[in-house]
Amino acid sequence: MADQLSRVFAALADPTRRDLVARLTATDATVNELAEPYDVSVQAISKHLKVLEEAGLVTKSRKAQTRPVHLEAEVFDLMTAWIERYRRRAEQRYRRLDAVLADMKDAEADRLGSSTTPPQEGRAS
Amino acid sequence: MADQLSRVFAALADPTRRDLVARLTATDATVNELAEPYDVSVQAISKHLKVLEEAGLVTKSRKAQTRPVHLEAEVFDLMTAWIERYRRRAEQRYRRLDAVLADMKDAEADRLGSSTTPPQEGRAS
Repeated sequence: MADQLSRVFAALADPTRRDLVARLTATDATVNELAEPYDVSVQAISKHLKVLEEAGLVTKSRKAQTRPVHLEAEVFDLMTAWIERYRRRAEQRYRRLDAVLADMKDAEADRLGSSTTPPQEGRAS
Repeated sequence: MADQLSRVFAALADPTRRDLVARLTATDATVNELAEPYDVSVQAISKHLKVLEEAGLVTKSRKAQTRPVHLEAEVFDLMTAWIERYRRRAEQRYRRLDAVLADMKDAEADRLGSSTTPPQEGRAS
């Protein structure tokens, strides 16, 4: 799985491949149809599709003679699961840091409030 | 932005770099601290960190002498925005396809129901 995750991230690290994926969300399409709008050869698009296929992001129909390319959108879940897991952890950490900072502020306010000397001008925040 | 998106995807297409990001969700850490658990040189980890830094995923503190590495977790949003946009489109398409198939089934049922001749065995689904 870790390896497929690397392949999926690598596959989407190219604007043309991301564009192919975006177009395949609308409809299945043949390699020729997919290559049509780009200023590159069908062979170049075939290579990009191979990278997407090896990452599991697209499949080619084995039935039809034209073998249209089909998006396997559920592979997105691999990435979002990874991203969400660590985003949540980072958020929890920031929330804990905020709490610590708030506690420190409260403690400082208490210290200044109970102090017999007024807070010094130069040190006031 | 498209370029940063490519860099972020490429940066996470490596298991060691994903592991570094995962560890930085817990706490900021120096390059030496980050390199410690791996069986590779500090230089190799520095290179990985450079890739993460160029993608905007981590920053190094300019203040402290040890220059701890800090995760910029909000960069995850770039990826999730892209992924969610196309996942939603793909889902809408499948939902439309399901609706079309349901309509076809209903029409076929109506045709068979109102037909004066019984459905032919060989053609029944």
